[in-house]
Amino acid sequence: MSPNEIRIFPLSGVPEVKAGDDVAQIIADAIQKRSWSIEQGDVFVVAQKIISKAEGRIVSLAEVDPSVRASEWAATYQKDARLIETVLREAASIVKMERGIIVARTRHGFVCANAGVDCSNTLAGTVTLLPEDPDASARDLRQRLEKAFGVKVAVIISDSFGRPWREGLTNVALGVAGISPLVDYRGMKDGSGNTLQMTVMACADEVASAAELVMGKTQRVPVAIIRGVSMQSTSGSGQDLVRPTDKDLFK
Amino acid sequence: MSPNEIRIFPLSGVPEVKAGDDVAQIIADAIQKRSWSIEQGDVFVVAQKIISKAEGRIVSLAEVDPSVRASEWAATYQKDARLIETVLREAASIVKMERGIIVARTRHGFVCANAGVDCSNTLAGTVTLLPEDPDASARDLRQRLEKAFGVKVAVIISDSFGRPWREGLTNVALGVAGISPLVDYRGMKDGSGNTLQMTVMACADEVASAAELVMGKTQRVPVAIIRGVSMQSTSGSGQDLVRPTDKDLFK
Repeated sequence: MSPNEIRIFPLSGVPEVKAGDDVAQIIADAIQKRSWSIEQGDVFVVAQKIISKAEGRIVSLAEVDPSVRASEWAATYQKDARLIETVLREAASIVKMERGIIVARTRHGFVCANAGVDCSNTLAGTVTLLPEDPDASARDLRQRLEKAFGVKVAVIISDSFGRPWREGLTNVALGVAGISPLVDYRGMKDGSGNTLQMTVMACADEVASAAELVMGKTQRVPVAIIRGVSMQSTSGSGQDLVRPTDKDLFK
Repeated sequence: MSPNEIRIFPLSGVPEVKAGDDVAQIIADAIQKRSWSIEQGDVFVVAQKIISKAEGRIVSLAEVDPSVRASEWAATYQKDARLIETVLREAASIVKMERGIIVARTRHGFVCANAGVDCSNTLAGTVTLLPEDPDASARDLRQRLEKAFGVKVAVIISDSFGRPWREGLTNVALGVAGISPLVDYRGMKDGSGNTLQMTVMACADEVASAAELVMGKTQRVPVAIIRGVSMQSTSGSGQDLVRPTDKDLFK
């Protein structure tokens, strides 16, 4: 490995995760099967989907009784009213609800389509919700992985979010443990000797995006390991990436 | 290199770029100095800043005569009126202009702070503008790099953009050549056999973000090489990542 190089390894062959499963053990088993060695500072990026499943954040649509509001919206846009009802229940507030698209703020403060309710890679008739507390999930997983591998690592729990002015989704970090989610360059000097004023980079989101490049959507690669990321510190959480509503210009 | 692994190499030691410089030659020289071999499918991520400088997209603030609007805004928020004037000239339209923050749509359709006008890593008293046509810049650079190295490569010209609901900046792709900017999973089957309906990933933005992890802001690393990115095709442009205004819910 050349100095300052970053490497991204896809962890394929992870079995289907069910409610109550031990994700740390599943990851450790998959890594041991490959005889991979985990190094100090490796970052595990884990798809929100398998965390949600392990934590039982699964809704069977057959058990959802849609409200009038959900039914009317669903009828207008040819959607499943039970899915829309689940989205409305997960939304702390609605940011936009237009043209069949629901952009909502979740209780965690994430602004995303369908309040994070997702019907891809789920059993027929079920949808997944975001983890209750992705930072707690990341901290717990980090602790267990450190115990399994005997080195300090970081964990990012990621999901794919849209952007208002750009096409396509990119992966972002919902839960973060063991890596500073933001790198703050303010006050440092740039290459021309000017003091940088505005630059805070969301490196945990960038690590999540980098991982997505090997994770795909159609094969089962719910985990990637990123080696060589330089960290400003090992503290901070995914909540640091959520812009407080009093700074939101697009409420 | 293990199968499906991605590697990201920072190209440091690139000299300061001036108007009229040949960026392809500068990159080729820096790579030859390291005796690196470039492989088919390698993606060069290049900071917008050096492309803008080479193309002479530099404004000397001493030559800018601010309008009344720019002067008033600058006085209210303790900004440089000549900088604000430059921002307003680069803006095709203003998306938000509040609390000292200007979010504008550029002529290319990019929605970003200060219409892409940037005073970091520039000579004192000067600012850079975005390239006139980042896709044309990417195509040109790709052609020259392919000639220099004798293999097919891709080029992404990247810049750091903010997001309305998340803290920190992430790198995105302004200009793209030789890699499909979007990966379209619609109609494919997920791991559970469901047909994916909504999933289009902005992989060029994710590659740009991945590259940023080695590029930093304070050292001169304006280029990164990403190896191992799987591409849906080699066609498409950075403009494919710009959401058309008729689909914009947040105008």
